[in-house]
Amino acid sequence: MPLPGVNAGRLVGQGEEGCQNPCPDQINIMSESTTGLPAILPAEGLHVVHLFYRVEQESWQYLEPAERRKRRDHLEKLVKQIQSQPDTQLLPYSVVSPKADMGFMLLTPDLQVADRSSKMLGEALGAGILTPVFSWLSMTERSEYMTSEAEYSAELKAEGIDPAAPEFATKIAEFHDRMEKYMRRRVYPELPEAQEWPVFCFYPMSKRRMHQLNWYALPFEDRKRLMGGHAKIGRTYAGRVLQLITGSTGLDDMEWGVTLFAKTTTEIKAIVYEMRFDVVSSHYAEFGEFFIGIRMGITDLCNRLNL
Amino acid sequence: MPLPGVNAGRLVGQGEEGCQNPCPDQINIMSESTTGLPAILPAEGLHVVHLFYRVEQESWQYLEPAERRKRRDHLEKLVKQIQSQPDTQLLPYSVVSPKADMGFMLLTPDLQVADRSSKMLGEALGAGILTPVFSWLSMTERSEYMTSEAEYSAELKAEGIDPAAPEFATKIAEFHDRMEKYMRRRVYPELPEAQEWPVFCFYPMSKRRMHQLNWYALPFEDRKRLMGGHAKIGRTYAGRVLQLITGSTGLDDMEWGVTLFAKTTTEIKAIVYEMRFDVVSSHYAEFGEFFIGIRMGITDLCNRLNL
Amino acid sequence: MPLPGVNAGRLVGQGEEGCQNPCPDQINIMSESTTGLPAILPAEGLHVVHLFYRVEQESWQYLEPAERRKRRDHLEKLVKQIQSQPDTQLLPYSVVSPKADMGFMLLTPDLQVADRSSKMLGEALGAGILTPVFSWLSMTERSEYMTSEAEYSAELKAEGIDPAAPEFATKIAEFHDRMEKYMRRRVYPELPEAQEWPVFCFYPMSKRRMHQLNWYALPFEDRKRLMGGHAKIGRTYAGRVLQLITGSTGLDDMEWGVTLFAKTTTEIKAIVYEMRFDVVSSHYAEFGEFFIGIRMGITDLCNRLNL
Amino acid sequence: MPLPGVNAGRLVGQGEEGCQNPCPDQINIMSESTTGLPAILPAEGLHVVHLFYRVEQESWQYLEPAERRKRRDHLEKLVKQIQSQPDTQLLPYSVVSPKADMGFMLLTPDLQVADRSSKMLGEALGAGILTPVFSWLSMTERSEYMTSEAEYSAELKAEGIDPAAPEFATKIAEFHDRMEKYMRRRVYPELPEAQEWPVFCFYPMSKRRMHQLNWYALPFEDRKRLMGGHAKIGRTYAGRVLQLITGSTGLDDMEWGVTLFAKTTTEIKAIVYEMRFDVVSSHYAEFGEFFIGIRMGITDLCNRLNL
Amino acid sequence: MPLPGVNAGRLVGQGEEGCQNPCPDQINIMSESTTGLPAILPAEGLHVVHLFYRVEQESWQYLEPAERRKRRDHLEKLVKQIQSQPDTQLLPYSVVSPKADMGFMLLTPDLQVADRSSKMLGEALGAGILTPVFSWLSMTERSEYMTSEAEYSAELKAEGIDPAAPEFATKIAEFHDRMEKYMRRRVYPELPEAQEWPVFCFYPMSKRRMHQLNWYALPFEDRKRLMGGHAKIGRTYAGRVLQLITGSTGLDDMEWGVTLFAKTTTEIKAIVYEMRFDVVSSHYAEFGEFFIGIRMGITDLCNRLNL
Repeated sequence: MPLPGVNAGRLVGQGEEGCQNPCPDQINIMSESTTGLPAILPAEGLHVVHLFYRVEQESWQYLEPAERRKRRDHLEKLVKQIQSQPDTQLLPYSVVSPKADMGFMLLTPDLQVADRSSKMLGEALGAGILTPVFSWLSMTERSEYMTSEAEYSAELKAEGIDPAAPEFATKIAEFHDRMEKYMRRRVYPELPEAQEWPVFCFYPMSKRRMHQLNWYALPFEDRKRLMGGHAKIGRTYAGRVLQLITGSTGLDDMEWGVTLFAKTTTEIKAIVYEMRFDVVSSHYAEFGEFFIGIRMGITDLCNRLNL
Repeated sequence: MPLPGVNAGRLVGQGEEGCQNPCPDQINIMSESTTGLPAILPAEGLHVVHLFYRVEQESWQYLEPAERRKRRDHLEKLVKQIQSQPDTQLLPYSVVSPKADMGFMLLTPDLQVADRSSKMLGEALGAGILTPVFSWLSMTERSEYMTSEAEYSAELKAEGIDPAAPEFATKIAEFHDRMEKYMRRRVYPELPEAQEWPVFCFYPMSKRRMHQLNWYALPFEDRKRLMGGHAKIGRTYAGRVLQLITGSTGLDDMEWGVTLFAKTTTEIKAIVYEMRFDVVSSHYAEFGEFFIGIRMGITDLCNRLNL
Repeated sequence: MPLPGVNAGRLVGQGEEGCQNPCPDQINIMSESTTGLPAILPAEGLHVVHLFYRVEQESWQYLEPAERRKRRDHLEKLVKQIQSQPDTQLLPYSVVSPKADMGFMLLTPDLQVADRSSKMLGEALGAGILTPVFSWLSMTERSEYMTSEAEYSAELKAEGIDPAAPEFATKIAEFHDRMEKYMRRRVYPELPEAQEWPVFCFYPMSKRRMHQLNWYALPFEDRKRLMGGHAKIGRTYAGRVLQLITGSTGLDDMEWGVTLFAKTTTEIKAIVYEMRFDVVSSHYAEFGEFFIGIRMGITDLCNRLNL
Repeated sequence: MPLPGVNAGRLVGQGEEGCQNPCPDQINIMSESTTGLPAILPAEGLHVVHLFYRVEQESWQYLEPAERRKRRDHLEKLVKQIQSQPDTQLLPYSVVSPKADMGFMLLTPDLQVADRSSKMLGEALGAGILTPVFSWLSMTERSEYMTSEAEYSAELKAEGIDPAAPEFATKIAEFHDRMEKYMRRRVYPELPEAQEWPVFCFYPMSKRRMHQLNWYALPFEDRKRLMGGHAKIGRTYAGRVLQLITGSTGLDDMEWGVTLFAKTTTEIKAIVYEMRFDVVSSHYAEFGEFFIGIRMGITDLCNRLNL
Repeated sequence: MPLPGVNAGRLVGQGEEGCQNPCPDQINIMSESTTGLPAILPAEGLHVVHLFYRVEQESWQYLEPAERRKRRDHLEKLVKQIQSQPDTQLLPYSVVSPKADMGFMLLTPDLQVADRSSKMLGEALGAGILTPVFSWLSMTERSEYMTSEAEYSAELKAEGIDPAAPEFATKIAEFHDRMEKYMRRRVYPELPEAQEWPVFCFYPMSKRRMHQLNWYALPFEDRKRLMGGHAKIGRTYAGRVLQLITGSTGLDDMEWGVTLFAKTTTEIKAIVYEMRFDVVSSHYAEFGEFFIGIRMGITDLCNRLNL
């Protein structure tokens, strides 16, 4: 006989009246009674949430197999539902080394959806199964150090191209096209396929504000030049490492989040190590924790974690 | 049969004799048997408490639906009751990213009320449901760097206005009026509506005391000038970001608490990032943890958290 | 039927054989079977322990009302008993903001009593109810920078008082009297009444040992001069803030503990902020965590915490 | 009667339908339903995972002896199975001092195997028995500061050996052989026997990036020279200490992991202390936590931990 | 009826087959089935482990009185048995302030015994009763800065003693005798009696490796001279403070462990404070956490902790 005021089931209730969080039939990320709350959309770009969870296997093993299957189904459905939201991407990954077990990277325009989805993912296997051990909130953003039309024009002139020549106009048009594409890739990125880019890396970073090494005390032109050199190293890894820098100043404890995708850890280690010699990193960067994940579908991830 | 000395209900008791903390009918923030304790009022301004809680969903799901409804009602009533205290404001928000789940910002004159309200909020859903993960105690305060009448007079004279002219007197009167309003907005702020300013940001900060970068070793005039430049940036965000600086030197681990309200995270990120280049931040600021919340009514917040 | 080897009551046993820690009738802080252990008395002054506890409300609510009353009585009796020890003071306070819930400041000569009392207070509400979240061990101590007779004589002479005049001798005698009183107030302080000085503040601090800012590399005279200026600021708060500096070098993780008493938080914030501009703080101080408490009787404190 | 949705066994289920994680008969590190996931192989070398666990003895003692025997058998079988994977080494050790209880060092080429093996080891004694308290992810790597053929040729010439002489060619061939062996020992190390090298030491480290002490701002030749001096000290410990440096830049929170094997702690302390005076350490190294383990077979380790 | 696979007793089993960890009759620190494992002996000196535990009173109170008595007996027997190991010392102490409750300092030659004893002590009151909150692994070691015969000869000559005189030879012999005794006291210390030296202090420390304050960049002669001055202060506390410096470079997170014994805390505070002004500390020392304990027999310690 259940105690008064207490559910019969240890973790979550079942049945008509006891149906709580993980009721697979009712998942609807937009169905919250708070639908009256208006969207909170950035002026540009997407909100990005990185989530790292530990799986409380002891609580999980305590459940009956049928209950586990139900909850696992619930998580899989929820992942698919979030992924089906407009302009929304959700990437699951297995975290290598016991810093965490399971992680998700979520990109979505509306902060309300980001908040709701994060909270639903955390409870998707039932209360007390996924314990958050790390997270990061950031936003996609343009680079502030992109080449301007004026700079590119000057470059063309320096190459001896006559500004009046049609070639000049063509090149300027191509330049705008290229910049536009580059900007879109940063602000509205399409994350690569897990199969081709299975290795995931995330770390937060800030720029230093020390007496002799103060990034924020440098003139814009110096920062632009330094970032240009930094980007040049990045480009030598084209096709081997995909990088997404998102801004978190004012949103989380450091100023940027760096997400890398690669085919092997060799490339991750190589690019981060090589960049460490670049002045932007060697003199001005502070790094937070590093996480390595293996991207996989949610079903494979559940299998990997014995869920 | 209950064990001796132990309540039947796992979390809280019910019934005549077992009625503990969350007894909805009896909420009375002033009813504590300690009413004999005199108020502790600041010489000026309000006490401010920022509260960040994690919801222990496992313990929550364990309760029967009726019990949950009762407790949720209790929280909603308590929030309203605290809000109805004189000169008191209480803002609930959903914390984005799993650093926390639910938060409150409380402003109230009496330290006794601040203490009692904080403790009651923490227990409002029953013992063991809300775990505090972060908090901040501060007080509203005047800016010590406000323009003085002497400075403004000098400005007017420099603009060529004759101190004997009626225009001069009018401007001085307007100046006092403006300063008075500005001071009141800082010391007795009226926080903006959640609907219009849904994005909440909080972080603590201190000024540096390092060998070469020692804010507290700067002459007052230098600090005033620097803060003036800092404030100028702030003013360019008028209508987009509302900012409340509260003092916590001697009260909590850093020297100030910064609360920002905005319509989107874009503006939060923009102002904090832009300010980072200002000397006050780039050379003299140390920042603590950053939290982003979405403001909403307590009912919506309970829905968001599946309570 | 109780399991073998396990008490019937979840938290503590009752009855003849099960009477454990909180058996109100048997409280006797000196009754420990270890009474054979000799006192450990400082050469001068008192041991000081600051204790900060979180109340585990979930475990507490689990108990039956009668059991709670018994335990609360036990705590109240224990507090009174400790307070009745010779040369011993014990101040309870409610900790504002959820850094902690309940705290005690204990002053007593014997380290054995300090240890025993701390351990008994921590268990006074039964095992698992009070979780220590912070503590500090220190000792009252003389100031090493007090004015010497030679210095005071020189001052008097500088004021033109003839060393042979009776006025000179009187002033020297008064000086010794004043110094003796001052010393006693530091080494054997009588803490002020809670009603008049309800606001309590505690923080630990160290002096810096950095390359350019090394307090311990300064000559004694420089340190004395700097501390003199620091003390001068303190004296402007006479009647508004009472301050007790206790030494913890070798005893706890920083070098001093600072306890402040005031009538409002306004004064606490004001003195700590003003001192931050003094060279002793601006150049040479490192601060630990800050705690604000409201002093009240143990009964009021139990009410405040819903115990 | 079991509650609905909850396993009868507190920790893991038994029997046909309840067989979860530790089912000894079914251990197959490659049998995960995710076998479709392709291997993630480094361009060169091995992935290295250091795992440090606390044993939750309270949960363990709760189990019946037969259940414990089963789980212990499961762990022993799993260790053997992982060890039997191609190019894979797994070293168990008892962690001295309660920083942790039990640890494993795993070397294996495929990141999928590294991830799967780590997760399986953590659950091998059943959910909730091994709590990870520390871990490190790194990869074996070549030294970037190895002597080049050009440098060695120059050395030979400086020794007066005629580049045309057969002796020169022989020496060059031997040099390549030696370098190849050295490289293989670093990139594909064969870890020494536990009996002969029972003392295990692990710590992570980074190179400094400070204003005056910035390793990453040094020219390559300076770093090579400094590392050469560092290595020279290491060679004086040949036969007494075996050292494996693995790279973790981009993979974990510091840049390298250092694993030492010795016959006694005396040698560990001696080499780390002596190296601390070498410029590479004294000026440029930051160290993380240090762990000492005693290597032993998994059976002895289970005995040591009373499993 | 016990659940399948689960012991009847919540914490440990009793009876023939259920006898686990704390079976008083079977304590034998050498009886582990791993006796085949050879000793790991330092080239010189002893391994030293400092252990600091919190007592989980909630779990303890849960046990029946008889079970508690049994476990307490077990701990007392284990302490005696460890103390009876050859060349082994084990000192229990009550930790003052709730940083920890109970602590042990263990000195023993064999790392296997150190590991086994630590693990057995941690489980001696049953699983889940003693939670380790801090620990330190170090080794006794010679001072590397001891006066050499050459230096002492030079001193004698400087005093005008003829190297050919018998007095010279006698003094040299006495010197060697003194050095030998001093060395033995450091490398094979006999810790003082608890009754006479009841106050225990432990803290770890490292020497700085900063740009301008780099101990490891100082020439040996400078370090020797500085350490000589440091030791001179120590000698003024002879008879009042006993000090044991043990080395932990490569073994634990800082480079040395410092253990002090005194009759009162006054002396502990005085020596650590006075030394802080000495260049070795003021310029070159980094300190870890400080712990104060009261030494007492294990029976008194159990009484103090209400076990």
